This record gives sequence, structure tokens and C-alpha cells, in this order.
Amino acid sequence: MTHPQPIGILGGMGPQAGIDLVSKITAETQATRDQDHLPVILVSKPEIPDRTAWLADPSAPDPAPVIAEGFVALERVGAGVVAMACNTAHTPAIFDRVQLQLMHAGARIRILHLIGETVAGLQAAYPDIRTVGILGTHGTLSSGLYHQALERRGLSVLAPKDTNRLSKAIYDPETGIKAHSSPVTTAARSQVQEAVSELAKRGAEAVILGCTELPLAVPETCLGGVPLIDPARMLARALIRAVDPARLRTLP
Amino acid sequence: MTHPQPIGILGGMGPQAGIDLVSKITAETQATRDQDHLPVILVSKPEIPDRTAWLADPSAPDPAPVIAEGFVALERVGAGVVAMACNTAHTPAIFDRVQLQLMHAGARIRILHLIGETVAGLQAAYPDIRTVGILGTHGTLSSGLYHQALERRGLSVLAPKDTNRLSKAIYDPETGIKAHSSPVTTAARSQVQEAVSELAKRGAEAVILGCTELPLAVPETCLGGVPLIDPARMLARALIRAVDPARLRTLP
Repeated sequence: MTHPQPIGILGGMGPQAGIDLVSKITAETQATRDQDHLPVILVSKPEIPDRTAWLADPSAPDPAPVIAEGFVALERVGAGVVAMACNTAHTPAIFDRVQLQLMHAGARIRILHLIGETVAGLQAAYPDIRTVGILGTHGTLSSGLYHQALERRGLSVLAPKDTNRLSKAIYDPETGIKAHSSPVTTAARSQVQEAVSELAKRGAEAVILGCTELPLAVPETCLGGVPLIDPARMLARALIRAVDPARLRTLP
Repeated sequence: MTHPQPIGILGGMGPQAGIDLVSKITAETQATRDQDHLPVILVSKPEIPDRTAWLADPSAPDPAPVIAEGFVALERVGAGVVAMACNTAHTPAIFDRVQLQLMHAGARIRILHLIGETVAGLQAAYPDIRTVGILGTHGTLSSGLYHQALERRGLSVLAPKDTNRLSKAIYDPETGIKAHSSPVTTAARSQVQEAVSELAKRGAEAVILGCTELPLAVPETCLGGVPLIDPARMLARALIRAVDPARLRTLP
């Protein structure tokens, strides 16, 4: 077989989330031997400044130029279609400036949008769902990123009332997923499970795990009868579809 | 903090083994937030021809030029120290020709050697050990790759008498690790445990899991008092040590 242009992944936001996206591309590829897989390049740049910190305080280090640099590096090694696994980096205040900088740099790569691909994938898989719950960092939730994308497609959105529990699950230096991702602590897993169950009780028919750390804590595709939507998996499938649709594994 | 040159990983041999090596770099780094991690670039080239097939029949497609191309791509995006996770690609018939081609291409990257770093790491961690057991595919064992590296450092080597049990644990289409890696079947896990215990009974003071699938079946660092050596983990630690030793997580 001939191999398409490599898929480019910009990682480091956090490092494990980028690795996880590459791993999901492998898992979602129809393959029985090494040579059936698609070429992928991962540029993991943990030096990209914290996205949530910059959104809260624009005098903090700006992630956008470092993200744009990463995409330029991916294009230089031959990537055609690229993506990044960080939800917060897709807020317009960051994402639109990355695209502008890439345009100025004359880059010709195509960026697949994590949130856009997630909502499109959710509707394709569950066309009857009307109310969707969303979990994520304080930055992602308050940016309204998923809210807007879901409402634009006619869906109702529920977010957790208590965002502190979720921040703890992600960021706590002792028990949080960013500090301990392999394995995730039982404390972090319980905090995420409780957040899913709160949304389900309020009427969510599916819950989007809108922070790349969350599926590490709840890798299940369903919890208490509620489908869990992993944006990275949706993005992995969209990337495969973009470069070589014949290689996309059919859903069970 | 300032960030060092990225670590470069050449993956695709197989795709999951390359991803696992990047994941182990993250796991072995002392970090509590994204920005504490090291920059890494993974070039996953599954189009690299099968190494075992070429060793068996030199008229089959040659992996060496494609491996060399991958390292050149890694250098072009800024990697200084590079490595690959495939045992078979380190046989001199392949590895020496890769190095020659890189020299001719004027490449200045430094390749850390999977087997060399495993044996060096083993001796540093367990300086009193004299007899080492080795498990792996029939190809790796019969190549003598680990045997030579261990004996060169004055260590005695024990290999399993029955390599069929191990082949079954790795390759069996019903119960083997290649077919079922998450989770591994209890049959495959028992077969690997028995192989470790056979070597321990014959006098092995440590056992090298010389095939990237084996640590998936026995993720323990010690089994029945015998340390299990995971080459990918040793390589991950050697890579961190090479670029920023202060970031290396201390062993428990």
C-alpha cells in the first residue's frame, strides 16, 4: 500500500493527552500488521504556556505563538492534516489568533477542530439525543466553547454546578490526573464519576468529557447507562477519515 | 525553566511500542504540571519494512534506509538525542547500516541504543547481579543481541529452554498479548510468569523482558523477589538523563 501524508499532532497540553490522541489514532485504524497503520508525527511541546492561566490573566505568558510554532514545525516535517488534543486551546481567544499567525506564516496545513469534530461525531452516533452534559476545566466551561457548538446544532446543554470538584480531579498536585495519570488515583476517578452522575440526574442523555485528562479517569464508553463522549476519540476518527477513510475502523 | 532540545523517538515498529516509549518518558519525568515535562517528538513511520522479514530474506524490502530517513526527519525538527523502541531494529545487520547512512547524510544526532542502555541501566541499578535471564521472541533470542551485550559486561545469561510457551504468550491468536493487550488474558500472563519463574529457579537474579509486549503481561517491577527489567523503561530513563538529568524521577 502507499502511505498518505503523516497526520500531525501538537501535544504537550498535557503530555499524556497528546500521547493518548496518537494512541487512539492507532486504536481506530483498521490494521492487522504494523504496515497497515498510518504515519503520525507528534510534536510534544510542554513549554506551551498554560491556556487557562492566560485566559484568566492576559498578562500571563501567551500560548498562541508557541502553538503556532508547533504547527509550523509539523508542516515542515510533512504533516498535511493536524490537530491538538487540548480543549482550552480551542477557545476563540487562543485558536483564532493561532490561525491568524499561521496564515501570516504562509502555512498550508489544515487544522481539524476538536470541539467541532466532537459535536459532529456525537450527532452522527446518537441522532436522537437532545440534552448533553459537559465536563471540563473552569476555563473550558466558562468560555462557552462546547455550549455554543452544541446549541448551534439545536442541543440543550448542562454543565456541573460545582466546578471545584472537577478542578481538583484535574489539577490537585497530590491526587489530580495531571500529577498522576498512570494510574489515575481513586480520588480523582470518584470525583469525575460523581460529576457525570450529577449531570445524568439533571437529565443529560450523554456527557462530553471536555478535558483531555478526564477519559484517563473514566475510560468507559458508558457510565450508568449514559454514553461518555471522548473528544480525543472523535478527533482521532476525524483525522483518519481526512487522510485515508478506507482505514477507519467501523464502530462496534 | 528553560527547555532542552526535544527528545526524538522513531516509532511505527510497531506503532504502539513507539507510543509506549513516549508515555514512559512522561512517566519517568519528575513533574507536577505540564510545563515541567520535556519536549518530545515522535515520528511514527509504520511504512518501515518488517525487520524480521528482511533478516530472514535480504531480498525483502530493506528497513535500514527508511529508518535512517526517519532519524533525519527528527533532526530536521530539532531533536538532539534520539532512539527507537524496536528490539529487532538493533541487530547489527540493520543498526550499523542505519548509522553509516546517517554519517553519510551528515546527521549529528546521537542515537541511544535500546539494548546497550538496558544492560547499562540494569548494572547501575543492581551492581551485584551476576546471572541475568532473558525473555523475548524467537528472533530476538536467536540473534544473540542481549546475550552479547550482557556477556561483554561480564554477566552470565540464561534463556528459556522452552521458547514455544513464550511464543504462545506473545503470538497466540486466541490468548496472546498481540491479539489481547488491554487487558492481557490470564493464560498469557501465566505463561510469562512461568517463564520468569523457570529462569529464577535456574539461578537468574533479574529477568529482562526483551520484547515490547511482555511488560503488558507483567507490569510489576519485581516477581517472586526477582527484578523484572523493562527495556523501554530503561531507554526512557536514559533519554531523560541525556537531556536533563535533574528531571529524572528517582527510582522507588
